[in-house]
Amino acid sequence: MLESLKMIDKHVKSWMEEVRVKVIASFNDNLDIKTKSGPKDLVTNIDREVEEFYKEKIRKYYPGSEIIGEESTHGTMKFKNCGLLWVIDPIDGTMNFVKQKNHFASMLAVYQKGVGVRGYIFDVMQDKLYWGGPDIGVYCNQKKIEPPRNDKLSNGLFGVGAPLLINNYHNLQKVALESCGTRIYGCSGIQFIHVLNGQCVAYISYLRPWDYAAGKVLAETLGLVVKTIDGQAIDMLSSSDVLVATKNAQKDITRIVQSTY
Amino acid sequence: MLESLKMIDKHVKSWMEEVRVKVIASFNDNLDIKTKSGPKDLVTNIDREVEEFYKEKIRKYYPGSEIIGEESTHGTMKFKNCGLLWVIDPIDGTMNFVKQKNHFASMLAVYQKGVGVRGYIFDVMQDKLYWGGPDIGVYCNQKKIEPPRNDKLSNGLFGVGAPLLINNYHNLQKVALESCGTRIYGCSGIQFIHVLNGQCVAYISYLRPWDYAAGKVLAETLGLVVKTIDGQAIDMLSSSDVLVATKNAQKDITRIVQSTY
Repeated sequence: MLESLKMIDKHVKSWMEEVRVKVIASFNDNLDIKTKSGPKDLVTNIDREVEEFYKEKIRKYYPGSEIIGEESTHGTMKFKNCGLLWVIDPIDGTMNFVKQKNHFASMLAVYQKGVGVRGYIFDVMQDKLYWGGPDIGVYCNQKKIEPPRNDKLSNGLFGVGAPLLINNYHNLQKVALESCGTRIYGCSGIQFIHVLNGQCVAYISYLRPWDYAAGKVLAETLGLVVKTIDGQAIDMLSSSDVLVATKNAQKDITRIVQSTY
Repeated sequence: MLESLKMIDKHVKSWMEEVRVKVIASFNDNLDIKTKSGPKDLVTNIDREVEEFYKEKIRKYYPGSEIIGEESTHGTMKFKNCGLLWVIDPIDGTMNFVKQKNHFASMLAVYQKGVGVRGYIFDVMQDKLYWGGPDIGVYCNQKKIEPPRNDKLSNGLFGVGAPLLINNYHNLQKVALESCGTRIYGCSGIQFIHVLNGQCVAYISYLRPWDYAAGKVLAETLGLVVKTIDGQAIDMLSSSDVLVATKNAQKDITRIVQSTY
């Protein structure tokens, strides 16, 4: 099992290096951009090509794996509870990819019998891969990351998804005002990274499984909390308002969120 | 005059290289952090040391200059309208500097007889200096920047200061919802850069002179609009809600802001 995870690490790193080359080369071409659920929900040919690339590699090297992919999974998702489950977000932060050519991530997560064993968040433009799992800890490229300090909300920056903040869902404007400052980057992978390395004490957004699958493995490995906004465990196959935070910030946020009930 | 601006460019670039070394070295030391107007308004020994460093250099090489600095200017500011005026923001985004060790800028602007002739915004951790003026255009390090496309609000990302958005000042939540997405980075220098290079179509925040002096020179050089939120010219020595935007996004934003009056 450990041996096979080492092999997965090696494979994923080489796949992601190939993805980086593809993505940067695409900046010279015209993107084929389509909308999905609405005008702010984009998909490009690159999202689809990168997802297909990962799927081909997984099918070749890990036949029999289940695969959930942002651009190809529809309808109900179910764990079959056998072997490996791969969760793919080929380009997380497609709007940033299109408009900024920066601040997006490519993400993979690996679950084994329902348990997260590997997360990979690749900040493509910074060429920084955050990766690891419960057996080995979390690394940024070759460097091991220490768990961040258990700061409280008032001592740290708060990352959030714009719609939640603007509409004051769950009293999140009060959460924002109690923090040191609010940050919105428009990419859950990048915002998970900020919590992993202690740059933010919390991040909340409405997320789908591929948005948080990798981040959840890495965050929990570092002793961070990943729950729904109201403190429940996350059903890996559902979409919900997900909170990743230090233990202390999670307590502070739960107090503020529940004060509205 | 052109010759002296070339000399200023050369000087500022070398000063900023020294600043980068100082700043990165400071990550190994304990910062001396104090609050100014409130718990979210920080100043560190590095802010003060970098400002003093710039002032010493300016006094040495450009004696007789007027100097406005974030950490040393108090009370009323007046143009004397003679010679050079330097505006210093030693560390813009001090909260990011302290909490993230990233996403902050060091900025200088040079005005001559009341006219902006040079702006310098240095993204320290990316080692990218955005600099230039009306006579030469705008550069990122050695590479000339083309003016960004004149996109409308609904076709671009919208940068904003968190308090303005949370409190819905000027109807800015509607502006946010009409854009492709909202971005909050907590550093006016970095957010000006995003508008300069077309990553965002607009940025609005409550800014003080040192927050926008450099960005205003660069943005106007590229044909972008820099005005108060209600479309007035900016008095260079006052603090106000400043908008930098493409011409089309500025029109869209003015329409939404004025629809509340």
